[in-house]
Amino acid sequence: MADPVPPGRFVTLEGGEGAGKSTQARRLSSWLAERGIDCLLTREPGGSPGAEDIRTLLVTGEPGRWDAVTEALLMNAARRDHVVRTIRPALAAGRWVICDRFLDSTLAYQGYAGGVPLATLRALIDAAVGDTRPDLTLVLDLSPETGLARAQGGGLGAETRFERKGAAFHAAVRDGFRAIVADDPGRCAVIDAGRSADEVAAAIAETVSGRLGVAA
Amino acid sequence: MADPVPPGRFVTLEGGEGAGKSTQARRLSSWLAERGIDCLLTREPGGSPGAEDIRTLLVTGEPGRWDAVTEALLMNAARRDHVVRTIRPALAAGRWVICDRFLDSTLAYQGYAGGVPLATLRALIDAAVGDTRPDLTLVLDLSPETGLARAQGGGLGAETRFERKGAAFHAAVRDGFRAIVADDPGRCAVIDAGRSADEVAAAIAETVSGRLGVAA
Ligand SMILES: Nc1ncnc2c1ncn2[C@@H]1O[C@H](COP(=O)(O)OP(=O)(O)OP(=O)(O)O)[C@@H](O)[C@H]1O
Ligand SMILES: Nc1ncnc2c1ncn2[C@@H]1O[C@H](COP(=O)(O)OP(=O)(O)OP(=O)(O)O)[C@@H](O)[C@H]1O
Ligand SMILES: [Mg+2]
Ligand SMILES: [Mg+2]
Repeated sequence: MADPVPPGRFVTLEGGEGAGKSTQARRLSSWLAERGIDCLLTREPGGSPGAEDIRTLLVTGEPGRWDAVTEALLMNAARRDHVVRTIRPALAAGRWVICDRFLDSTLAYQGYAGGVPLATLRALIDAAVGDTRPDLTLVLDLSPETGLARAQGGGLGAETRFERKGAAFHAAVRDGFRAIVADDPGRCAVIDAGRSADEVAAAIAETVSGRLGVAA
Repeated sequence: MADPVPPGRFVTLEGGEGAGKSTQARRLSSWLAERGIDCLLTREPGGSPGAEDIRTLLVTGEPGRWDAVTEALLMNAARRDHVVRTIRPALAAGRWVICDRFLDSTLAYQGYAGGVPLATLRALIDAAVGDTRPDLTLVLDLSPETGLARAQGGGLGAETRFERKGAAFHAAVRDGFRAIVADDPGRCAVIDAGRSADEVAAAIAETVSGRLGVAA
């Protein structure tokens, strides 16, 4: 009988709007692939057919369409589906999972910025993910002004419910992500995202090498 | 200055498929209206525009479309929106609210029948409803065979995800509702729903008179 496959590693990218999460998630998965590591690149909210259906409810419509608690419940419903249908099967098969946003976005957006008590959010997150927790979380830190300008470079698209929430909200999101890293430095690393995409990618590669033992 | 309006009462109807909840919710609101009590008749999942959007995800598609935890998170997202946008404003205005299914359906369907730990569900329900709890819950008790036959009298419609879950599931739902009443007899009352609609309506009127002090 073959030895059981060791489970893959679970890496999440977090940060505010336009911080470079999607760009760096793609670059990280290419970097890992070049090193022979098979990755699943996925994103939240979404990443499974059911979760993509829920995503549409979350990212379209007016900024005030849902209150922060409703938003947190919907987000965790999408997360649960994504974990059960996509992330767990990939990890169990020995693949790495690179996820563009995950549970820390709920704490930053609905908690630190949205005012929902963190204990309430942690209860929803526990229900959604169980023991499927990231091995490493890369927090891309950038001023909201720069991030929103980057994100809107291509003009305002349809998925702008969060982008339109205002400056104080986005400042609170940034501070929230910093507090999350301070609370859990073993899992999280801050990456200065105000540099060029190449420099950010190099910093991420160094962190992944150091923390998860991938030869650079 | 006018005295503040005393808040309305919040009455929920619960029970398995086809037990007569919708029929009796309508009859109860007419009965109260005849006694000069202004009621809002509403239902779950749904009862507000956002919650109706979520309802579509819940009640259509294959029985296995969502796992029980995802289902509970979606249901409570819909519930939150319904509570915030519809139920609380009505109660604050002094109206009674008659709701066709509420939090006990989550405990019965996703908990007792679906296997999600009750403590997990209670955390989601707490997030969704806060202190907006029913004053009275009428549990319509009926054998699942009779209920499903009644519900399917008009043929299988589109909203049949739960109806198609099988006999063992529906038996567990019924037992779950009975356990809920046993746990909280001050709030809940069992109504034998195997009688004619007139007899069930009379039993409900008697319970509402006795428990909430409405003159019959
Ligand atoms: N380091 C960088 N410097 C300048 N521009 C960048 C940098 N990284 C990404 N960009 C550009 O900024 C925009 C936003 O990047 P990206 O979509 O990766 O961010 P994001 O964090 O995923 O944004 P969102 O929160 O909207 O999903 C894109 O147009 C991208 O090409
Ligand atoms: N006491 C009764 N005796 C016989 N038939 C009834 C009785 N009450 C309701 N019905 C009929 O049974 C069917 C189901 O009733 P109703 O829709 O009120 O149940 P429900 O509990 O709301 O069902 P569902 O779970 O599908 O929403 C309807 O066709 C209704 O007319
Ligand atoms: Mg992105
Ligand atoms: Mg009904």
